[in-house]
Amino acid sequence: MSDGTSSNFSVVSTVEKFLIDPQLGGRRYNVAAGTILHELGSKASSIFFVHSGQVRLHQIGPDRSARLVEILGPGEWTGSSALAGEAENDTRATAVVASVVTEISAESMLDGLGRDHGAAVEMVKQLAKRVLAAREDAARLVFDDCNERLIKTLLRFSTSAAATQRETGVVLRITHQQLAQAVGVARETVSLALTQLRHQNLLQTGRNQLIFDPEALRRFQQNGRGTPAAQVA
Amino acid sequence: MSDGTSSNFSVVSTVEKFLIDPQLGGRRYNVAAGTILHELGSKASSIFFVHSGQVRLHQIGPDRSARLVEILGPGEWTGSSALAGEAENDTRATAVVASVVTEISAESMLDGLGRDHGAAVEMVKQLAKRVLAAREDAARLVFDDCNERLIKTLLRFSTSAAATQRETGVVLRITHQQLAQAVGVARETVSLALTQLRHQNLLQTGRNQLIFDPEALRRFQQNGRGTPAAQVA
Repeated sequence: MSDGTSSNFSVVSTVEKFLIDPQLGGRRYNVAAGTILHELGSKASSIFFVHSGQVRLHQIGPDRSARLVEILGPGEWTGSSALAGEAENDTRATAVVASVVTEISAESMLDGLGRDHGAAVEMVKQLAKRVLAAREDAARLVFDDCNERLIKTLLRFSTSAAATQRETGVVLRITHQQLAQAVGVARETVSLALTQLRHQNLLQTGRNQLIFDPEALRRFQQNGRGTPAAQVA
Repeated sequence: MSDGTSSNFSVVSTVEKFLIDPQLGGRRYNVAAGTILHELGSKASSIFFVHSGQVRLHQIGPDRSARLVEILGPGEWTGSSALAGEAENDTRATAVVASVVTEISAESMLDGLGRDHGAAVEMVKQLAKRVLAAREDAARLVFDDCNERLIKTLLRFSTSAAATQRETGVVLRITHQQLAQAVGVARETVSLALTQLRHQNLLQTGRNQLIFDPEALRRFQQNGRGTPAAQVA
């Protein structure tokens, strides 16, 4: 989650090896873009491991507005509600491109952890990282103004499955609306803030994509910036 | 966290039994009210298990403002940063009353999980619950107005170590300032919203304490209420 990528690689491998073990009885399948793996409020019983493609988690608000919570790529999984023993899923998980996933029953996975020490330890580490990321998310909403939140969100997604590394930075495939959902503000507010970053040559915008250099954004953030465009309570 | 108390009891027992095992080399000690167990930004290397007393976790904002994240009581623990392998703690943990805690090195705890299947499974469940609670926290900040957030926060803390069960409801020991930190609004906003609940006979206020019936608050919330006092972006 919040840490680098290289250390995650071995973590993922241990967990992946564990999750695809036939003993767990998982079912692997190909899903089309737009497939909902689990719905908010549906019975929480399975973990979904992503082999390829991209899965996004959303929380849904009272007015059916959505908040983008996580972007999962190969080697990542969703199903915390089932692991926690909750009756219902707390998010909607959607494959946003054609993806290959394995569905494993949470019960069988928890049983399996008792037989695989390495996987249990890595699972604890991954979950602890998710706790930190979710807490940081909430802190951002309280402490940071909109511009700071936008930059932190861009940096977070710059290492996600929605980002492609380029020589001069990353290409992040996301719409203004989706970014607004993740930052927790109106689309208009995000568009305004993105325009400002563009005017400062920190970002280029394309059709449903943003191009930026994470290092330049990070420096900009640390150096303290001008007056924020939109102050959010 | 978000679920009932009875199911938590066996969870806690398994984890407690594991954490106090002399093999883990934990150090048990008594701490005075006000003792900081771990500071935001300090080296993250230990888990702290609470035997008695009460420990509160805070995030600290850029202007040194604090956000109350969790209230931990007997059978609960803090140290997700150390478990996640992060270098620094992401919160401050303060014993707010005289408490008895055991400090265990995260490394030795992760090693130990490899020898104790039951504890590993319960630890995964507890962490998954924390992921859900932290995500819900963030969703509240995006989707709910101030009054809804206040009521959800009161309900959450009504099962925490800061609450005492009475025949007619609970007594929650918390100041308006602390509650405001948890809800993520100004103290004045929380005081106004509490006054409104008091006028509707849903709450009584005392010196640094609030008295209310969680069931009545829950019904009030579900029935839909009047116009919110303070709308928060």
